[in-house]
Amino acid sequence: MKPVCLIIGAGAGVGGNVGKRFAREGYHVALCRRTDEEGLARLVSEIESAGGSASGYLLNAVEENSIEDRITAIEEDIGPIDVVVYNLGAQVGDRPLEETSYKVFELGWRMGTFGLFRVASTVCPRMQERGHGVLLVTSSTAAMRGNAGQHSHAAAMGGRRMLCQSLNAQYGPKGIHVAHIVIDGAVDAPDTLGRMLGPEKFQQLRETQGANDGLLRPEEVAETYWHLASQHRSVWTHELDLRPFSTLPWWNH
Amino acid sequence: MKPVCLIIGAGAGVGGNVGKRFAREGYHVALCRRTDEEGLARLVSEIESAGGSASGYLLNAVEENSIEDRITAIEEDIGPIDVVVYNLGAQVGDRPLEETSYKVFELGWRMGTFGLFRVASTVCPRMQERGHGVLLVTSSTAAMRGNAGQHSHAAAMGGRRMLCQSLNAQYGPKGIHVAHIVIDGAVDAPDTLGRMLGPEKFQQLRETQGANDGLLRPEEVAETYWHLASQHRSVWTHELDLRPFSTLPWWNH
Amino acid sequence: MKPVCLIIGAGAGVGGNVGKRFAREGYHVALCRRTDEEGLARLVSEIESAGGSASGYLLNAVEENSIEDRITAIEEDIGPIDVVVYNLGAQVGDRPLEETSYKVFELGWRMGTFGLFRVASTVCPRMQERGHGVLLVTSSTAAMRGNAGQHSHAAAMGGRRMLCQSLNAQYGPKGIHVAHIVIDGAVDAPDTLGRMLGPEKFQQLRETQGANDGLLRPEEVAETYWHLASQHRSVWTHELDLRPFSTLPWWNH
Amino acid sequence: MKPVCLIIGAGAGVGGNVGKRFAREGYHVALCRRTDEEGLARLVSEIESAGGSASGYLLNAVEENSIEDRITAIEEDIGPIDVVVYNLGAQVGDRPLEETSYKVFELGWRMGTFGLFRVASTVCPRMQERGHGVLLVTSSTAAMRGNAGQHSHAAAMGGRRMLCQSLNAQYGPKGIHVAHIVIDGAVDAPDTLGRMLGPEKFQQLRETQGANDGLLRPEEVAETYWHLASQHRSVWTHELDLRPFSTLPWWNH
Repeated sequence: MKPVCLIIGAGAGVGGNVGKRFAREGYHVALCRRTDEEGLARLVSEIESAGGSASGYLLNAVEENSIEDRITAIEEDIGPIDVVVYNLGAQVGDRPLEETSYKVFELGWRMGTFGLFRVASTVCPRMQERGHGVLLVTSSTAAMRGNAGQHSHAAAMGGRRMLCQSLNAQYGPKGIHVAHIVIDGAVDAPDTLGRMLGPEKFQQLRETQGANDGLLRPEEVAETYWHLASQHRSVWTHELDLRPFSTLPWWNH
Repeated sequence: MKPVCLIIGAGAGVGGNVGKRFAREGYHVALCRRTDEEGLARLVSEIESAGGSASGYLLNAVEENSIEDRITAIEEDIGPIDVVVYNLGAQVGDRPLEETSYKVFELGWRMGTFGLFRVASTVCPRMQERGHGVLLVTSSTAAMRGNAGQHSHAAAMGGRRMLCQSLNAQYGPKGIHVAHIVIDGAVDAPDTLGRMLGPEKFQQLRETQGANDGLLRPEEVAETYWHLASQHRSVWTHELDLRPFSTLPWWNH
Repeated sequence: MKPVCLIIGAGAGVGGNVGKRFAREGYHVALCRRTDEEGLARLVSEIESAGGSASGYLLNAVEENSIEDRITAIEEDIGPIDVVVYNLGAQVGDRPLEETSYKVFELGWRMGTFGLFRVASTVCPRMQERGHGVLLVTSSTAAMRGNAGQHSHAAAMGGRRMLCQSLNAQYGPKGIHVAHIVIDGAVDAPDTLGRMLGPEKFQQLRETQGANDGLLRPEEVAETYWHLASQHRSVWTHELDLRPFSTLPWWNH
Repeated sequence: MKPVCLIIGAGAGVGGNVGKRFAREGYHVALCRRTDEEGLARLVSEIESAGGSASGYLLNAVEENSIEDRITAIEEDIGPIDVVVYNLGAQVGDRPLEETSYKVFELGWRMGTFGLFRVASTVCPRMQERGHGVLLVTSSTAAMRGNAGQHSHAAAMGGRRMLCQSLNAQYGPKGIHVAHIVIDGAVDAPDTLGRMLGPEKFQQLRETQGANDGLLRPEEVAETYWHLASQHRSVWTHELDLRPFSTLPWWNH
C-alpha cells in the first residue's frame, strides 16, 4: 500500500506541483481544492499518465466537517496519511481597514488559521499513534509582518505561524515534522496569482520579472517541499523562506 | 471636556491600574469588563475619590455589537475617545491539542484577534478624522512564539501582533499611535493570575518570586503605558517588552 | 553625592539631550565624545546654566584603555556610575562590499560591538556589587536586518544586539537593567546626520519630512531614555523601537 | 573541469560530510581546517576512494591573508569556486562576562564575523563576474538570541547573520545564493562537540539523546546543504533552521 500525501489547496501552482512531486516518489496523492472540477480531474490524470497514483476531491475548507470527513474517509478508503500539505491561502486582496468587513476578516481566519487547526486536530493524533508524520504548511510574508492593506491576511497568517510553532512543540518529539514555509515572493501560478491579476497583467508581470526565474516556479518550490519531507528526523527544519534571487526579502527595501 | 481613555479589560491588574494612571493625568476613564459589577464600581469610586473621573460598563467583548455600541455611546455621551487600551487576554490555560476544542480555539481568536479588529474598525476612522489617537494593545509572550499547550493562545496573539503592525502601517502616518506591548512575565494581579492559580498558589508564587518585585507590578506597568501615550509623535514606540528583572526573557532558558 | 550618568557619544543629538534630561533629574552627567571640545564645553555649560551638574571629556572610544580609564577615573573622582548610555554609532555610510575595506569593517566592530563589550566589562562588575545599574544602548535598524551597503554597519549592530541580550541574561537578575533601543529613523541631529548629509541636504530633508516631527527629535528621544532608566525593576523593558509617526517601520515598505 | 566547492572548517562533522556530499555530485572539494593534518588526509582519501576529487589544506582562518591566498591559489590551480561553505564555529565555551577576556571576545569576532567578511570580499566579486555562486554559512542558535555565557559567541554570530543578510541584499540579484543555516542543536561530531565534552561525556550525551537521532547527524545535515546549493534560482532559501525532532527550538522551553 502506498503512503498517502494529502494536499489541501491543490491548484496549478504550488499545491498541484507538490502533488506531482510526491506521486513520483511513490505516494498516493489525495488532491483537494474548492472549485474547478475539470482542473482537478486534469491534475489527477496527469499524475496517472506519469505512472503515479492520485485522487481528487472538491472540498470547501471553511465548511463545517469538510476537512474532518475527508481525512477520515481517506484514512479508511485509501490508507494512513503520512504527509499533509496545507496550502490554502488567506489572501483577500490588499484592502484598507474600512474596506475589510468583519466577514472578510473572519474568512481570512477560517482559511488561514482555523482550517490548519482543524487539520491538525484530526490528523495529528493519528500520526502520533503511528509515530511519524509530516505537516508542511505553506505560508507567506504576511506571517512575518503586518502591512497596510493586510489586516485580515496578516492576522490570519501570523496566527498560522504561531500555531505551527505550537504544533511543533507538542508533536515534534512525537515524530511529527511540522514545517512552516514562508513564500516571500510571487508564485508563477496561473490560477491564483494569474486569476487575481487577470491574464494580461499576469503575463506582463511574468515578463517584467523574467518569465523563467523572476517568479517562484512552482515545480521548483515542490523540490523544497520534498526535501523537507525527506529530512532525517535528527535534522529537521521548522521554518524556511523561499523567494526568487531577484526579489528582495521582506526585511529589505 | 476631558479627553476619554477607554479600557477594554479593566480588572484589578493592568487594566485598572492604567485607568487610574490616565485618570490622574486628566482623562475621563471608561472602564469595561465582562463580570464583577462590584469590582468595577469599586474601581470607579477609587478613581473618583482620588479626584478623577471614570465610568464603568459591563461588556462581553465576544458578543455581537457589544464593543461597537459601547464606543458609539461613549463618543456620544462622554466625548471623543483619545486613547484605547485593549487589555483582553486570550489565555485559555495550557492545554494540549486534543483538549483544545474548536470552540476554545475560536474563543481565543474572538478575544485575542477579532475583538481588537472590531475596536480598530470602530474607532480608527474617528481618530483619523480628528488627526490623532492612541491604541495601546496589551500582548504576551505567546505573540512572539508558539509553545506546547498554547495552540489557541499563540494563534490568537500572533494574529493580534500582526494586526497591530497592519494597523500601524495604515494609521501611523495619520497620527494614530498603535503600540504592541509584550508582557513577558506574570503580573501580580489577583483577579487574573490569582483566579487562575487559586489564592494559595498565587500567594506562594508571589513569595517565591519576591512579593515586591518578582511579578510585574501592575501600577508600574501603567507607568509605561502612560509613557507610550505621551510620546511625541516624532518618537513613537511600536513594540516593547516588559518583564521583572528576575525573569529570563522568552528567548532565553 | 549625585548619582552619575555616563554618556559615551555625547553630541548635539541623542547623547547630549539624554545628558540634559538626566541632569534635570539630579544626575551628575559625564559627557564623552571624540572631537569638538568646544561643542562639549558648550553642552556642559548649558547643563550648568540650567542648574545641573556635568563634566566633559574627549574620548576616542576605539583607543586602547580609553573607555576603561575614563570609567575608573569617574568612579574615583566623581562617584559610582549608576547609568551608562552607550550612544556610539557605527555608521560608515552606505557602501557596497567592494568599497568596504577590512579597516572599515573592523572599525565598525570596534565602535559598534567591542566598545560596548569594553564598557560592560568595566562597569557591570561594579554595578553588580552595588546591586543596581542601568545600561542604555542606542541601536539602529541595522541591528534588526542586514541590507545592501550595510555590511559593516549591520554586522556591528547585529553583534551589539546579541551582546545586549547576553548581558541582560547574566546581569538582569543581578539588578542591572540593560535596554536595547532601536532607533528606526533619522534623528534631527545637526552633528551626526547633519554632518553626514551636509547642511543644505540636511535642511532639505528636515523640511521634506516635516521639520517639527518628521525626524526624531532628540529631546523627545531623551524622554524615553529617562523612562527606561526609571522603570521599576519588576517592569523592565529590554527592547523597544522608536521612529517618527510618518516613517514606515523597517519591516514595511 | 569540475566545479569547485571550498569548505572552510572541514572536520569530521558538518564540514567533512558536506564535502563528501558535494564530491558525490561531481565537485572537486577543497577542504580547509586549522589542525589535524592526518584527519584532513584521511578525509581526502575517503573522498578519493569513493571516486571523488578532493584536496586538503591546513588553514588558520584568523591569520592575515590565509583565506585570501587560499582562495586565489585554488582559483588559479584548480578552477573557479562555485560553492563556498563557511563552517567555522566561534564557540569559545560558555563563560560569564568576567571570564571573557578582550582577546577571547575578539577571537570570536575574527572567526565568527570577520572571517566570513574576508571570504565574501575575496570570492563574491569573482562569482558576480561569472553570474553565479553559492555561499552556505553554518550558523547557530547564538545568531538568533544572546544568552548568559554567550557574550563573545552571540555577538560574533549575530554579526554573522546580519552580514549574511547584507551580502544577500547586494549579491542575490547578481546570482549569488547566500544561505544562513541555523544549527539549533548539538551535532554528533566527534572532533568539535566530542572534543569539547571529552570522549566519555560525549558518548553519554549521545546515548541519552538517542545515539541514532538525538543529535544532528552530520551526513544528514549535508543533505540540506546540498539541497540549498541545488535550489533553482527562482526559489532560493536565505535562512532555515535545523534541529533533531526531540530537541525543542530555541524559542521554546
